[in-house]
Amino acid sequence: MPIAIINGPNLNLLGRREPHIYGSETLDDTLAELGLQFPGNAFSFFQSNSEGEIIDILQKEGYMEECTGIVLNPGAYAHYSIAIADAIRAIPVPVVEVHISNIHSREEFRHTTVTGAAADAVITGCGRLGYRLAVEYLLSLQKQR
Amino acid sequence: MPIAIINGPNLNLLGRREPHIYGSETLDDTLAELGLQFPGNAFSFFQSNSEGEIIDILQKEGYMEECTGIVLNPGAYAHYSIAIADAIRAIPVPVVEVHISNIHSREEFRHTTVTGAAADAVITGCGRLGYRLAVEYLLSLQKQR
Amino acid sequence: MPIAIINGPNLNLLGRREPHIYGSETLDDTLAELGLQFPGNAFSFFQSNSEGEIIDILQKEGYMEECTGIVLNPGAYAHYSIAIADAIRAIPVPVVEVHISNIHSREEFRHTTVTGAAADAVITGCGRLGYRLAVEYLLSLQKQR
Amino acid sequence: MPIAIINGPNLNLLGRREPHIYGSETLDDTLAELGLQFPGNAFSFFQSNSEGEIIDILQKEGYMEECTGIVLNPGAYAHYSIAIADAIRAIPVPVVEVHISNIHSREEFRHTTVTGAAADAVITGCGRLGYRLAVEYLLSLQKQR
Amino acid sequence: MPIAIINGPNLNLLGRREPHIYGSETLDDTLAELGLQFPGNAFSFFQSNSEGEIIDILQKEGYMEECTGIVLNPGAYAHYSIAIADAIRAIPVPVVEVHISNIHSREEFRHTTVTGAAADAVITGCGRLGYRLAVEYLLSLQKQR
Amino acid sequence: MPIAIINGPNLNLLGRREPHIYGSETLDDTLAELGLQFPGNAFSFFQSNSEGEIIDILQKEGYMEECTGIVLNPGAYAHYSIAIADAIRAIPVPVVEVHISNIHSREEFRHTTVTGAAADAVITGCGRLGYRLAVEYLLSLQKQR
Amino acid sequence: MPIAIINGPNLNLLGRREPHIYGSETLDDTLAELGLQFPGNAFSFFQSNSEGEIIDILQKEGYMEECTGIVLNPGAYAHYSIAIADAIRAIPVPVVEVHISNIHSREEFRHTTVTGAAADAVITGCGRLGYRLAVEYLLSLQKQR
Amino acid sequence: MPIAIINGPNLNLLGRREPHIYGSETLDDTLAELGLQFPGNAFSFFQSNSEGEIIDILQKEGYMEECTGIVLNPGAYAHYSIAIADAIRAIPVPVVEVHISNIHSREEFRHTTVTGAAADAVITGCGRLGYRLAVEYLLSLQKQR
Amino acid sequence: MPIAIINGPNLNLLGRREPHIYGSETLDDTLAELGLQFPGNAFSFFQSNSEGEIIDILQKEGYMEECTGIVLNPGAYAHYSIAIADAIRAIPVPVVEVHISNIHSREEFRHTTVTGAAADAVITGCGRLGYRLAVEYLLSLQKQR
Amino acid sequence: MPIAIINGPNLNLLGRREPHIYGSETLDDTLAELGLQFPGNAFSFFQSNSEGEIIDILQKEGYMEECTGIVLNPGAYAHYSIAIADAIRAIPVPVVEVHISNIHSREEFRHTTVTGAAADAVITGCGRLGYRLAVEYLLSLQKQR
Amino acid sequence: MPIAIINGPNLNLLGRREPHIYGSETLDDTLAELGLQFPGNAFSFFQSNSEGEIIDILQKEGYMEECTGIVLNPGAYAHYSIAIADAIRAIPVPVVEVHISNIHSREEFRHTTVTGAAADAVITGCGRLGYRLAVEYLLSLQKQR
Amino acid sequence: MPIAIINGPNLNLLGRREPHIYGSETLDDTLAELGLQFPGNAFSFFQSNSEGEIIDILQKEGYMEECTGIVLNPGAYAHYSIAIADAIRAIPVPVVEVHISNIHSREEFRHTTVTGAAADAVITGCGRLGYRLAVEYLLSLQKQR
Repeated sequence: MPIAIINGPNLNLLGRREPHIYGSETLDDTLAELGLQFPGNAFSFFQSNSEGEIIDILQKEGYMEECTGIVLNPGAYAHYSIAIADAIRAIPVPVVEVHISNIHSREEFRHTTVTGAAADAVITGCGRLGYRLAVEYLLSLQKQR
Repeated sequence: MPIAIINGPNLNLLGRREPHIYGSETLDDTLAELGLQFPGNAFSFFQSNSEGEIIDILQKEGYMEECTGIVLNPGAYAHYSIAIADAIRAIPVPVVEVHISNIHSREEFRHTTVTGAAADAVITGCGRLGYRLAVEYLLSLQKQR
Repeated sequence: MPIAIINGPNLNLLGRREPHIYGSETLDDTLAELGLQFPGNAFSFFQSNSEGEIIDILQKEGYMEECTGIVLNPGAYAHYSIAIADAIRAIPVPVVEVHISNIHSREEFRHTTVTGAAADAVITGCGRLGYRLAVEYLLSLQKQR
Repeated sequence: MPIAIINGPNLNLLGRREPHIYGSETLDDTLAELGLQFPGNAFSFFQSNSEGEIIDILQKEGYMEECTGIVLNPGAYAHYSIAIADAIRAIPVPVVEVHISNIHSREEFRHTTVTGAAADAVITGCGRLGYRLAVEYLLSLQKQR
Repeated sequence: MPIAIINGPNLNLLGRREPHIYGSETLDDTLAELGLQFPGNAFSFFQSNSEGEIIDILQKEGYMEECTGIVLNPGAYAHYSIAIADAIRAIPVPVVEVHISNIHSREEFRHTTVTGAAADAVITGCGRLGYRLAVEYLLSLQKQR
Repeated sequence: MPIAIINGPNLNLLGRREPHIYGSETLDDTLAELGLQFPGNAFSFFQSNSEGEIIDILQKEGYMEECTGIVLNPGAYAHYSIAIADAIRAIPVPVVEVHISNIHSREEFRHTTVTGAAADAVITGCGRLGYRLAVEYLLSLQKQR
Repeated sequence: MPIAIINGPNLNLLGRREPHIYGSETLDDTLAELGLQFPGNAFSFFQSNSEGEIIDILQKEGYMEECTGIVLNPGAYAHYSIAIADAIRAIPVPVVEVHISNIHSREEFRHTTVTGAAADAVITGCGRLGYRLAVEYLLSLQKQR
Repeated sequence: MPIAIINGPNLNLLGRREPHIYGSETLDDTLAELGLQFPGNAFSFFQSNSEGEIIDILQKEGYMEECTGIVLNPGAYAHYSIAIADAIRAIPVPVVEVHISNIHSREEFRHTTVTGAAADAVITGCGRLGYRLAVEYLLSLQKQR
Repeated sequence: MPIAIINGPNLNLLGRREPHIYGSETLDDTLAELGLQFPGNAFSFFQSNSEGEIIDILQKEGYMEECTGIVLNPGAYAHYSIAIADAIRAIPVPVVEVHISNIHSREEFRHTTVTGAAADAVITGCGRLGYRLAVEYLLSLQKQR
Repeated sequence: MPIAIINGPNLNLLGRREPHIYGSETLDDTLAELGLQFPGNAFSFFQSNSEGEIIDILQKEGYMEECTGIVLNPGAYAHYSIAIADAIRAIPVPVVEVHISNIHSREEFRHTTVTGAAADAVITGCGRLGYRLAVEYLLSLQKQR
Repeated sequence: MPIAIINGPNLNLLGRREPHIYGSETLDDTLAELGLQFPGNAFSFFQSNSEGEIIDILQKEGYMEECTGIVLNPGAYAHYSIAIADAIRAIPVPVVEVHISNIHSREEFRHTTVTGAAADAVITGCGRLGYRLAVEYLLSLQKQR
Repeated sequence: MPIAIINGPNLNLLGRREPHIYGSETLDDTLAELGLQFPGNAFSFFQSNSEGEIIDILQKEGYMEECTGIVLNPGAYAHYSIAIADAIRAIPVPVVEVHISNIHSREEFRHTTVTGAAADAVITGCGRLGYRLAVEYLLSLQKQR
């Protein structure tokens, strides 16, 4: 079963939007690399600007157990979406939250993450590498079982 | 005209998700019972994880007056969706907010409800029975007219 | 064993005080109706303006198990009486908090309820009907046992 | 009909307790003087340390209209008793709140008065004279009618 | 020596502005009455919309001891002018703060008074009568000496 | 290239909902007028109750540069949607935020706008005229280039 | 009757002070343009660094009805002058608040406007054009009468 | 003269209520032990659920100097009863506040004690032993005299 | 095994520093007395101004179980050292926090204790006697085992 | 060109007002000394109780560059005058803020300085010497150029 | 040059303290593994309970550039040590902050990290694996150069 | 006896760390200059990154009266070290707090100083010159005795 990579609002603009903060690589580039870095593993990719769709995907992937783990970059929803946080709490597969920039060194309203409070782990500020580190963490959990 | 029962994010998982908090009955079971309990009344059922869709439904049901009253369980949106609260304020039919668990005895961010401030009444902590009590309240309003 | 209906400060003025908010029916009218609505059940009625007396009654009714459930309208004490909340936590019988008006749509200091955090359920904004709905909830709990 | 003078907690100690703040005259002295100062008027005097009893008196005097106006020194209850504030709001006769010391120049938690928000007027820091000024205000209201 | 009556911003509009809150009598009417009510006493009257001028007057009247007491209605400056509060603290003559409406029952930002914290007493909500009560208080202080 | 006019939640009810606040003209009326007022300019109109769709439209119009400027009325999302604010920050075309009523004189939670912090300008309280003023501003920017 | 344009503290430095925020045109240039843009209308111009003088002008222009509308740029007083806000509330002519820069995207203490809460409308971030847009709004009000 | 032991709301349930927090010994057991532990000393015992009665007792015992010291467990009133705190401040005999559980490790609203701010000392978390330690402290004060 | 008495910053100045708050006995005097008061028990004494060293000692004494209980006066670290609180949580031996003065009646920032939240009990305001009471509590725990 | 010494509200009372806080030397004495201490330098002195006049002076002295540096004691305006802070930001000459008493050890509302945030340096608690130290700092800046 | 692994307070107890939160592996085990996982790289290990020593080490390693990157687990100091945050800001080598448990799902005071605001990245909740992921991130930075 | 110059965390990096904020002169340079500027005075210099060591030095220098005055730059500890503030309060020699940059114009958490509240004076933003001004202040105190 694959690992699901779910990206939230505005992350489709990655590589084009504010490159001094987020870098100039596109999201597709990043995800393509994951396939190379973890050759024996399958990945399913999602991006949506909609809070409701992100919950739909989390439920479908996480509750239906169509994947073995989820890497979630909730974008700005991290800071106020209790609904996404509830969805994370409702699903049995492990969830790692990833932010490309370091949320703790940006505006004060980005210093807390309500969705991260529901996730297993939060990786922030590692750039695109964050996705790979999150996958490593999920794979390590599988080995432990 | 029917009474509309509108459920928000993650309530489609009811009966499966965190049963120690929400019980093990599914949402369909609960709604099916309403038909039996109020035999002479029609009900229309909606569930969505999307804030925007919930507003769409509230407007269609409430503004177009396609129903005589609305039972709304906004889930986590209760705590921050001023947009849903505005939709409730904009519609002429009565709205009762229902929460299955007692929001006042959970995490502090669940102690206030911005959508409940726009509703006519709030019933919280009565479990699935809350839906039936809400319908009773709406029917009592009709008798008063 | 009866169900206890306990009313807090200023509720003895119901039907006379600020009728645009609380209606013009007196508290006695409301309680008399309960006897008619639930013919096979006994009720014991209490009203006090004193925080200490409300705790006395809760302990006598709830701790001594002289009743099978309690409907409590704590009035304004809901918003600051940690002592009443502690009394509710100390007693084994179920407690439902009722407010006639919707506390969430009034002044900000009425939006939270410290006693409701200790109760099993909170019904607010259903007018006098709230008492009947609370009794229904308590009776449904008995059936479940 | 008389004017009611209602004093709250610890005011029975006046003249003995912390004289550097409250002066050395007793409450009885103060009230006795009122009779002399307003010879044609009757006064009824009450003091209680109990929040509930103060509400009882306010209701009896104010709601039953056994007096033409109320001078209330709620003592420390001024700062948190929403229940007394609700009682004031429920009664039709005018209420003037009096504090002997200036609450605005003492500890920060004494700077606001929730009961004063429900009263018609607040006189604070005028010492015992405050009672007389409050009576003058109430008498001036009667002339206006 | 006279008693000084100092009025702050917008009080020159009294009797014309928002009469449902402040009444329809003008400030001149009110002050003229004071002369009649306290026949043996002199009064000096000031009104300014400027924070700095109010400080100038307080210093001139209060510090130079050109008056025996000050009745100050600081208007909206009550809620933020630490500079006026400092001026009050700096002068030896007694100061009574008066507000025509009850500041405790209006918007939350009017519930505290930083200038009142520096004054001897605060009379709020007694309408125009407040000025007379304040003068009575000042005269009573003179008798005590 | 046209100017995009994007309207958020509940604005489709304009002219019908709470006319004492928002007036009785419909949104279509308002937009139709824009065509007349700026005859040489094209406009594209959007309305959605969904936060995610508003981001989709902002990206499509603003990032793809399918328009020369955007007039955005985010409705209630103004007060909490960091995700929409991020979308505004990510797009190169200028954005003017418009609110029909004056958000500063309504409930306290409407006094701040997180989306307005990302926009170039905010026009609030000018009624339907606000849309026309926003267009004028956008056209003036074009002239400056 | 003319429209009054009232400018608050530091706005006399416009065009010279911090041009990266406020532009390099002087206030006189801006006001001169208004005459050209609205040829059939008279304008009266005021600038003061003093809170008290701004209240004086508002009262003279607005209360005495020497103008048909007021465009007010209160500068920094917007963020704390309850006294100016009270003056705006006291006058019958319409008032539009203008800020040259977007107050919502600057320091947090500039995100709220207490004077704007009393004004009819607030236009912020449109640069010098804001004055013209404000005048258009005032003229549109006249047509409606 | 005896030492007074005054217990507040819900402490009559000790030994029966929530034994995992408060232990299973009753209050009578605890107080009986005090007689044995301090054989040469007299004790007077009080318990009340009423804030007003606790003030009555404090005044009678403390102000009338019918005891040499007071051990006060104010229960939940510790967290909000400014009226009890004022009573403590008004009496000349020393007062030690005791809490059976450690208030600092429970819910946040129990972390501060307004009555403890008026007491001489606060002993919290020592279980029933706290009463004995408080008595020891009071006896040590007597020796110092 | 001994009981450890650990004192934090500035407590080495006891008896010399601010004697009106802390008394004139030195810390050595106090500790010497403990030996006399509990003749059959051993004590080990520590004092450090360093947060890190206090953690070192807590770990050595508490984790290595070189003592049977710890009396900790963390001084000002009580109010912010989450690191010391974590050390207390990490060790199995019981810890009693002692403050010589009553922290609840001093500056507001001393009213809460983050280290006390991790301790078993807190004794504050009993002066030097607090150390003896803390030892009594620890000895009583040993008897219970 | 001279150095300007600008003093705010109530500083004209220096030497007479609250000498236990501010000392008994008058402001004139202090300024006269500056001439002696820095014989080769010219000074211009200003004092005003008016926020607006202080801005006028700051603009005249600082913007017109009629001085080489400014020593500003804004008195109480330091704590809330964003308008003065904006004036400081608008002028090119260096500004040093001086407070005679240590603002950090007085009431909490004096612990922050909004004008100091705009100044180059803040010297507080050095008494009258603060003026001399401020001048030294300004002269040292001139040497660096 | 090696990578420095710096651990803060109480982390020496890892594997022994609260294993349900932190696991049962010791810190030495974890660090030993790093050598195996990154065979070609050198590591230097530090642990201290002292805030000052952690700053000393950060300066020595980071400022003197004795290492190529730093993995810092500041323990509880993350939540309040502005001094450590300043040290991180002062050094040129990259710093990754690691927390073994997910700080966002624990007590509220652990939800923000002032040291993380100064670091390049923060990895929290990945257990001991977090150290390895942090090293991977640091090595990836080296490749980019 | 000498004047003690005590520097806190990260100040050993002065002249090398963030020179755009702190300048490029080293701490040694600065201190060396002091010797030249005040030829007849002795100075003792200390720097430590440890909160505990700073307290040790303050006690040794200040309490033992080994110096006549202390210049303290507590660095970041200024903002949270109540323990250092307590040490300052405990010592009889005068203490002047110095910050090189203006703490009021940096991040909000640097705007208040808890150690400065205990010091005699605070000089902030004068760069390295601040040390010399502080010494001047201390010397002026000696002359006054």
